[in-house]
Parts: sequence; structure tokens; C-alpha cells
Amino acid sequence: MNFKPMRKASIISIGNEILSGQTVDINTSYLSGKLFSVGIPVVSFYTIGDDVDLIVRTMNFAGDDADVVLMTGGLGPTDDDLTRQAFAKFLGVELELQNELVEEIRSFFVGRNLLMPEKTKIQAYMPAGAKSLLNKFGTARGIMAHKKGKLFVAMPGVPVEMKQMFEESVLAELERMASGQAIVVQKLKCFGTGESGISELLGPIMQRGRNPLINCTSEYGVITLSIIATAEDKDKAQRMVDKDELLLTELLGELIYGRGEQTLAEVVGEKLAQQGKTIAVAESCTGGCLAKLLTDIAGASRYFTYGWITYSDKAKISELDVEPDLIEKYGSVSEQVAKTMAEGARKKAGTDFAVGITGIAGPSGGSGQKPVGLVYISIDSDTGCQTRRIDISGDRDFIRLRAAQIVLNMLRLKL
Amino acid sequence: MNFKPMRKASIISIGNEILSGQTVDINTSYLSGKLFSVGIPVVSFYTIGDDVDLIVRTMNFAGDDADVVLMTGGLGPTDDDLTRQAFAKFLGVELELQNELVEEIRSFFVGRNLLMPEKTKIQAYMPAGAKSLLNKFGTARGIMAHKKGKLFVAMPGVPVEMKQMFEESVLAELERMASGQAIVVQKLKCFGTGESGISELLGPIMQRGRNPLINCTSEYGVITLSIIATAEDKDKAQRMVDKDELLLTELLGELIYGRGEQTLAEVVGEKLAQQGKTIAVAESCTGGCLAKLLTDIAGASRYFTYGWITYSDKAKISELDVEPDLIEKYGSVSEQVAKTMAEGARKKAGTDFAVGITGIAGPSGGSGQKPVGLVYISIDSDTGCQTRRIDISGDRDFIRLRAAQIVLNMLRLKL
Repeated sequence: MNFKPMRKASIISIGNEILSGQTVDINTSYLSGKLFSVGIPVVSFYTIGDDVDLIVRTMNFAGDDADVVLMTGGLGPTDDDLTRQAFAKFLGVELELQNELVEEIRSFFVGRNLLMPEKTKIQAYMPAGAKSLLNKFGTARGIMAHKKGKLFVAMPGVPVEMKQMFEESVLAELERMASGQAIVVQKLKCFGTGESGISELLGPIMQRGRNPLINCTSEYGVITLSIIATAEDKDKAQRMVDKDELLLTELLGELIYGRGEQTLAEVVGEKLAQQGKTIAVAESCTGGCLAKLLTDIAGASRYFTYGWITYSDKAKISELDVEPDLIEKYGSVSEQVAKTMAEGARKKAGTDFAVGITGIAGPSGGSGQKPVGLVYISIDSDTGCQTRRIDISGDRDFIRLRAAQIVLNMLRLKL
Repeated sequence: MNFKPMRKASIISIGNEILSGQTVDINTSYLSGKLFSVGIPVVSFYTIGDDVDLIVRTMNFAGDDADVVLMTGGLGPTDDDLTRQAFAKFLGVELELQNELVEEIRSFFVGRNLLMPEKTKIQAYMPAGAKSLLNKFGTARGIMAHKKGKLFVAMPGVPVEMKQMFEESVLAELERMASGQAIVVQKLKCFGTGESGISELLGPIMQRGRNPLINCTSEYGVITLSIIATAEDKDKAQRMVDKDELLLTELLGELIYGRGEQTLAEVVGEKLAQQGKTIAVAESCTGGCLAKLLTDIAGASRYFTYGWITYSDKAKISELDVEPDLIEKYGSVSEQVAKTMAEGARKKAGTDFAVGITGIAGPSGGSGQKPVGLVYISIDSDTGCQTRRIDISGDRDFIRLRAAQIVLNMLRLKL
């Protein structure tokens, strides 16, 4: 690359519970994505136990290659939380009690009508000279300090606390450091084909070493394509990304449902809100998964009003007016019942759209004719009722979530 | 500990594609579980890019703390696979061509009616004096060598190749190294207090360096306590775990809801099924989260029958017979509405229990009197209706899931 040496980052996760597999580390991929998006590539991840000497040595080791070292975990109040102590040792300073932090912690508990446990007082200690970072959701403040021109930051391991702190107190500092180097990433979200399908459609565009690099990952049927352009300034990288985005849009057409971190539920919700339409759901096998996805979105009350989880036949009959004869004749997992559930829900809720889902999520309850993974989905609207049979391979979780995503994709294409 | 010092392990994943998030590293958790089960705890994971110097330095750094260093990745035939070269440099030896390996690779391709690509010849080179490990599913042989009494192993990054190689050529060596040490782990799951609350109840039992070690982690209010006993044989370690489990059960009482990987929904479901009881849910702010948790469990249809997601006031009125006047007077987020939702749901579903939840999940919609995070939970049963006000700090996701977990815990204590 023909520009000044890039700033690089390293991430250290601290916690015995991660090493032993008790806790899954979701912080590292979050931070890695964020670092990348400001133009600072990550050159190493480290996961280590709660051990003062090992933390200090790893901070030194990570700092050999990286200009920024972000750490998570070990700032709690218990005896096995040792990041605070290690940070002070790494800087060669003492931990100092900060009285205003004692008050802050006390008021955190008072606000919740709780007594402040004596142990939490340790969280009011900071390495001398380091900056303490506000934690809006807990009592573990973060720590930020420079050593030999490099930036070291310790944040809590609890993801919700870490994310808030990172975004409010760390991100701006990183953006300052990354000036003069740029990585621009644009994600395109697709639904309707698998990774190999995408790979066939895109061909040589997906080659390694290409700039922009096109990255592909898959989760519950949602394919994320990342266009990653590296250049000496943001504008140039952005132009490279824009060009590729056009190209991909042409090649993939309506397989692309959104950009960035958009979920299918978000896109469907936006379309409903824009068009002033409302929706109701009647779920059997998905047991609330679809309603949850729709209401995960803030402001969902603009379009989502009613939901039924009619897990038993009795509930389908009493709540959605499904005819007992229909269940008798075709079984509760059938095209006919899915359709009647959707129609019944729309009639009762008085919405523009209503969904009926019935299927076999397993692991038991399947048969030769109706295997585990068989799901009927029906969408009723004033243009009539559309019903689809789908067959999903996977475990109970996968079948339920995949079925809910397929409904959302059907709704997207309908809207 | 009154026996010989424990053997410890470290794992290094090598590959630019892992750092950039293109490939998810599933090898580390597999190896970590295997190492643990033979009695060798893992003290660190490292993820680094394909860079000879960084690999050598990381091997040295990992070897400072560990007796066994397992590496995966970077043994392929392409230019960015550099683990072979790094391993030789680490040992201070040259790479030597092994003619029998050239033949092996050639026959791998011949057996598949393919021409051997010239590039794959690099895979027939081994660091002088190192042992090469058979790969049944590919051409990337593994490398095993000792340095300063410590064991270093490089395996391919492709999980199926790595697993086969580990089990056939590495596991036995590790068992030999671990003879005379055993680890037994038992997890206890708790709900009803935070980490600092647990820590106060357990006091010195949670001290670091104690054997068994008591480890504590928290997720959406669920506290997992792991009792980790280390001894010279499995039986002794098991007895130590059993003893501590009794002690913790005494100290924590009904804060403990389960063992192993049990979820609150599983425990509640089991109790309902055992007692032949049924449940219905009426959710507003949680929008299906509670129904989803209950129906995540296979066999939930034994006790879960009906659910309503009454997101709008209209739905609360039409589906659950909540009086419009009540909503007018107290607001839809109120003790009174939660109670009427639960009562209405139980009446309509004819179940033994019914839950009503109404609250403000945010991010908007809060006010001074009714802030974001305020949730009313009501459980109706034939012994009457119990209603609780709770205040949750966090984002929309956290508030919704935490509220659902609190309901499950209330149900557990009721059952």
C-alpha cells in the first residue's frame, strides 16, 4: 500500500469463564468489526485467564504489534476480577480510590433501592493518571491510558455495558488515531439462496486479494456480503465500495433485502410503517419467534398490533375460529389449517396482513408424510391468501427461526 | 495442591480470514473441550494472522505459560500459509523435503483422478527432526515437536482434518502427559441476585486458588456457578465437587434453580409437566419473548397451550377483556392492566396459570413516572393473582429478555 503505515489493533478478552467455554465471547467480533469500520485492522486476538501477571505480559506482547489494545472483562467486583490491578501494574502506578466514584456506585444501588455491597467499592479504584470511562448500565467503569504512544483501554465484559462504553468513550478516540488511512465497509444483506448460490452468481468477484474484498457469511439463511475497500482516504474507498455495490445489486437483484445491519424484520417493519399497513400473526410451531422478531424493532407498535400463539388445537379453534373438522381431516399441520389461521387472525385483528404458521419443529412429532422440519406458512391480505409448504433441515431452534425468517422474506417481497 | 504441578495448554489459531471475521474459528472450542476432558486446562487462546515472525513470537509467548501448545491453520499449499516455515524457524532448523510425503500427496491426487498441483509440494517439507502427523482427509500433514520439554503441535485449520488428526495422533500423547491429574466440573444455575450478591453469600469460598475453584458468570440475570475440582484422579475430583455442591446448595438455597446447562424455561416446563399443570401467556412489551422461551423446549405442548401478544390497547380489550376504563385511568403500563391481562388470559385459556406482562421496552415511550425499563408482571392462578413492579436498566433487547426471565423465575418459585 502506498500510504503511511497503518494503525493496527489487538483485542484481549480476559476471563477464566471464556477459556473454559462457560461464556461465549461475543465482544471480540463486535470490537473487531468496529475497529475495521474506522479503518484500523485487527492483527491479533488474545483470550487469557484472570491472572495479573499474564494480563500484564499479554498487554506488553499485544502492544508490540498494535497501536491500540482493547481489553474486555475482569472489571467486576469479585476476587477473580483482576484487570484493574493488572492495568495499574502494567502502567507502573498504584490504584487510587476516587471518592466521586464511590458516590456514583452508591447512587447506582440507591436508585434501585438496594444496599451497596461492600465488595463493589473496589470498582472505585483507578490506576493513577488513567482516565476512567463512564458505564451507564453498571458499576464497572472502564480504564483508558497511553503508554509509549499506544492506547490501552479496559472495558467490562458484559456486552451491553461494553458496547455503550465503547461507543460513547472510545470510538471517537480511535477515529482520531485512524486519520490518513481508510477502510470502508458496506454490508449487503441477502435472503433466498445459500452461500454457494451467491458464489456462483458472483464468480471471480469473490476472489481473495481483490480490493475491494467481498466477504460472505451466513446465519439462519441470511447471507451477509461485506464489500471491504482499502485506500488512503475515505472518499476514494467509498467510491470503490459504491462501484461494487452497484455491481452486486445488478447481479443479485431482489435477493438483496437490505444494507448494513438491517434485519429482515426491520425492512418489513419499515415498509409496513411507510405504507401505513398493519399486521397480525398466528403462530403454532414457531411459538412466538415471529412476533418476537417483529417486536424486537423499536416502534413496532406502529404496525404490529395482535399476535396469537395457538399451540394447542383448542386454541386454534377458540381463538382463530379454525373448524375442528378441518383439523380432524387434514391435521393441525396442514395447508388448510395454516390458511384458516391466517384468515382468522386477520379477521379478528382487522389488520391489512395476517400470518398463519403451523409445522413440526421437532425433535419428535414427525412422521413419514409429515417429517420434522415441515412448515406451512400462509399470508392473508385483501388480495387473497398465499400459502407455502417449506421443508427445513436442522434442529428445533434452526427450524423455528428459519421458518420465521422465511415468513419475513415472503412479506418483504409482497410489500 | 498436594501433587505435581499441573500440565497446562495454550491454543493458537492462525489465519487472516479468522481475524477479519470471514471464517468462524470452531477449532479452538473443540480443542479446549478435549484438553479439559483429559485434565489439561487451557490458560490462553491466541488468534493471529499468517505472519512468520508473529507466529514464532506467539509460539514462544504461549510456551512461557503452557506445557502444550496446539496450533491450527496455515498448513495449506498457498503463499499465505506460513505455519510450516514459522515452526522450522521456532525450532531453529531447516525445512527438509521428505520424498515419501511427495509420493503420499501425489497418490492423494491420483486417487481422485486429479493432477497434483505443483504448489502442494510445499506440504512435503517438514522442519528437520519434527514428527509429521498423518492427515486422512487432505494433503496438509501436521507437525509435532518438543522444545525445552514442551510439546508443540501444528494441525490443519479445516475442522474435519484437524479433528481426525487430533484424535489419532495427538490425544494419546496428551493423555500420557496428563496422567496423574484430573478435572471435574459441575455447573449450578442461579437466579434472583447479582454477582456481587452471590459473592457476599459465598464469601471466602469464591477465593481464587481454592480447589475446587468456584467460578461465577452472569447473563441476562442468570448466574452460572462452576465448581471446578482438580485432583490426581477422577473419583477424588468428583467427591470434591459433590461436597462443594452440597455446601453451595445450603448457602444459596432457592437461588439455585438448576444444574448443568438447564435454562429457567426448562426447569419451569419440567415442573409444569410433572405437576400436570398448564400455562398461558399474555404479553405486551415482551412481544413473544416469553412464549418463545417456553416453546424453545421440546415437548412444550404438554403444558403450553395459548399465548396472546396484545401489543395494542385494542388487542388487550378485545382479546383479554381488559376494561377500556382501566387503561384510561391507569394507563396500559400499570399494575391493574397487568393483573387484568393475566386474569383474562387464564379465563379464556382455561389454564392453571396465566401471565400478564406490560411495560416500556424503549428506547422511547418512557416518562418521569413511567421510565423505560418499567415492567409490571402478573401471575394468575387459583390461589389468586400476584403482581410485581420491576425496573430494568439496559437496552430494548435486555429489558425484554430480562423481564421474561424474571417471570420464569417467579413461576419456578410458585411451582
